[in-house]
Amino acid sequence: MAVSVERLQQRVQELERELAQERSLQVPRSGDGGGGRVRIEKMSSEVVDSNPYSRLMALKRMGIVSDYEKIRTFAVAIVGVGGVGSVTAEMLTRCGIGKLLLFDYDKVELANMNRLFFQPHQAGLSKVQAAEHTLRNINPDVLFEVHNYNITTVENFQHFMDRISNGGLEEGKPVDLVLSCVDNFEARMTINTACNELGQTWMESGVSENAVSGHIQGTENVLQFKEKTNLDGILFGTSHCAPPLVVAANIDEKSLKREGVCAASLPTTMGVVAGILVQNVLKFLLNFGTVSFYLGYNAMQDFFPTMSMKPNPQCDDRNCRKQQEEYKKKVAALPKQEVIQEKEEIIHEDNEWGIELVSEVSEEELKNSSGPVPDLPEGITVAYTIPKKQEDSVTEVTVEDSGESLEDLMAKMKNM
Amino acid sequence: MAVSVERLQQRVQELERELAQERSLQVPRSGDGGGGRVRIEKMSSEVVDSNPYSRLMALKRMGIVSDYEKIRTFAVAIVGVGGVGSVTAEMLTRCGIGKLLLFDYDKVELANMNRLFFQPHQAGLSKVQAAEHTLRNINPDVLFEVHNYNITTVENFQHFMDRISNGGLEEGKPVDLVLSCVDNFEARMTINTACNELGQTWMESGVSENAVSGHIQGTENVLQFKEKTNLDGILFGTSHCAPPLVVAANIDEKSLKREGVCAASLPTTMGVVAGILVQNVLKFLLNFGTVSFYLGYNAMQDFFPTMSMKPNPQCDDRNCRKQQEEYKKKVAALPKQEVIQEKEEIIHEDNEWGIELVSEVSEEELKNSSGPVPDLPEGITVAYTIPKKQEDSVTEVTVEDSGESLEDLMAKMKNM
Repeated sequence: MAVSVERLQQRVQELERELAQERSLQVPRSGDGGGGRVRIEKMSSEVVDSNPYSRLMALKRMGIVSDYEKIRTFAVAIVGVGGVGSVTAEMLTRCGIGKLLLFDYDKVELANMNRLFFQPHQAGLSKVQAAEHTLRNINPDVLFEVHNYNITTVENFQHFMDRISNGGLEEGKPVDLVLSCVDNFEARMTINTACNELGQTWMESGVSENAVSGHIQGTENVLQFKEKTNLDGILFGTSHCAPPLVVAANIDEKSLKREGVCAASLPTTMGVVAGILVQNVLKFLLNFGTVSFYLGYNAMQDFFPTMSMKPNPQCDDRNCRKQQEEYKKKVAALPKQEVIQEKEEIIHEDNEWGIELVSEVSEEELKNSSGPVPDLPEGITVAYTIPKKQEDSVTEVTVEDSGESLEDLMAKMKNM
Repeated sequence: MAVSVERLQQRVQELERELAQERSLQVPRSGDGGGGRVRIEKMSSEVVDSNPYSRLMALKRMGIVSDYEKIRTFAVAIVGVGGVGSVTAEMLTRCGIGKLLLFDYDKVELANMNRLFFQPHQAGLSKVQAAEHTLRNINPDVLFEVHNYNITTVENFQHFMDRISNGGLEEGKPVDLVLSCVDNFEARMTINTACNELGQTWMESGVSENAVSGHIQGTENVLQFKEKTNLDGILFGTSHCAPPLVVAANIDEKSLKREGVCAASLPTTMGVVAGILVQNVLKFLLNFGTVSFYLGYNAMQDFFPTMSMKPNPQCDDRNCRKQQEEYKKKVAALPKQEVIQEKEEIIHEDNEWGIELVSEVSEEELKNSSGPVPDLPEGITVAYTIPKKQEDSVTEVTVEDSGESLEDLMAKMKNM
């Protein structure tokens, strides 16, 4: 049966109208990967409505950042593109970061819609694919490299290590920073293993199962970097003096994935955690302000505990002790500045769920460990302490509800 | 010349493919306003990937919120849909708020792309129209009412007042909360005038011109509401005891719109401010945690000053003093809880721009004012103090760079 020309013409018009409508509201106007705007060769400070960087370049005029354009020279890897990771990626994309590497193996689900970034029509797509598409539309100047896999398997771990080492802005060079935005203990420890092995700078973030607290935390290489770049605020660190990971009270990252338990989450808490994480990334990369070693967020009381890192004068490492002495001399020569530290008491919420990532480490245990003892405000516990000698023994701290000790987990990862 | 059927059929196929591709990546699958999912009649706690509310309803199981479904009964008006307002709207939409009313008169520009929410292809659309479209796709269960106008003109102010009074979830009832997310002093004072006249509860937010600090603040009616609902944390307030608006150091909201000055902004700072604002909205509406009367954010030092409201025992209002006595008795009968308060000193950044919203109010001036004296941590100044008698005189505090006194501005608004 012949189809009438008229009817076909009508259908073409209809489709063209629909397509135009879709594109005007939700998608980029061109299909060249350029999103709603063309690529920009050089960041401009010009104050015009059409300049996507005018409000960022204004940070220079305001005396906050001396060289904002430097942002384009950095490559950042984000592991975990969920409630925190996706917003982290969007913020860095809008800030004009040079390159983003995204790692995740989850699919977008309607159950994720209570957090920012993903939209219902993306349900079923892989998170990295959906994220890349959205982010490329937002800022076509950013380079993207996405990996849709679980970094904790043997094969993927090797590939992950390789991309961290070679996936920098210039292929063959390492990335500048790794951000952990994962929701489980195993993935976090895998990132820790990879970054320690590579001497890679990284920062981590976390949110609690009850959705009302979270934190960000730097790692020893962040401290080392800051020491090298001579910025104030954070005291010290060498790769041998790895600080213990700390967790805000009530945080149980492992349990997020526990069988039969649906963790609560809020776009607010995750947005705040992503915001303070990326703010510290910007401060770190662009050399302004004070980078927090640890910053917690208790949403119930609007309480933000901070923590500074203190060197351990009894450190086994001779070079560490030597560097401490040199640092002390340097600090003594500087004008006095106080590190902000939260000392107020907070009202403890009852943990009705009896959930705890680790058994609380006693003062005694902390003193006996060779790692530097952090200055812990109330509401924060230490996740693990540092072994006396590397490759030796790990202080026995067990993860509740898992039946595996930290030693077991570390051994597992070594066998990968 | 006749068009071949074959060629038309090919074009239809081509267009259908393109349309399908666009829709799979960026737009909802159906055009019924239902976005990527159908409307949901009743919030469910079921733990399945297809339930957009499972992670929110889990707040009940976690013991954080007793009645999460109540969120659907509230209408919130957001004035200003920029860097803070748009993210605020998105968070509330994802949380499943009953109704949102959006007020703005700006258009989306590429210069806005350094903040979350809007995308380059939306440039040129009105902010409220673009926002409504995106938000409706994200959550079709939310009702939207948008107004593309400037609330500070005489005519629009009347309409704004009318919608605040009648635009609640049920037409004819007032909204439950007004959020000020505007970027200039005039709009903020207009909202203040409207809400005071209507006895409307509202909260406000702000970010600094240099992009590295911000704050949120409740108003007297928030305090009054909390008093009524018997929650702890915030002490007191009656409509006569309006607290002075306070501003974080270096904030100059007016100057955001100053001729020739391009204010800096960051997605991080704005995301954090929106996050803490909506978190406090949720705590306020759903009765959990402690609502902050004032919470600041200093991004340079990761410093979050909080402030509590103290009643003025010398208040002119007899009913206020009476309520204070009753409140004291009530508090004495409760188990002791400390209100968190930041007392640490911070290193003051130099304000190289000489920008100040108001001249600093001296200790003396504060004592002489009849308004309650807030407990101000360092880094915060008082925007204005409260007149001895209403409708009488306003303490002379002038806005720099504007040439208009607060009195002038108030008088202007009264004449609207």
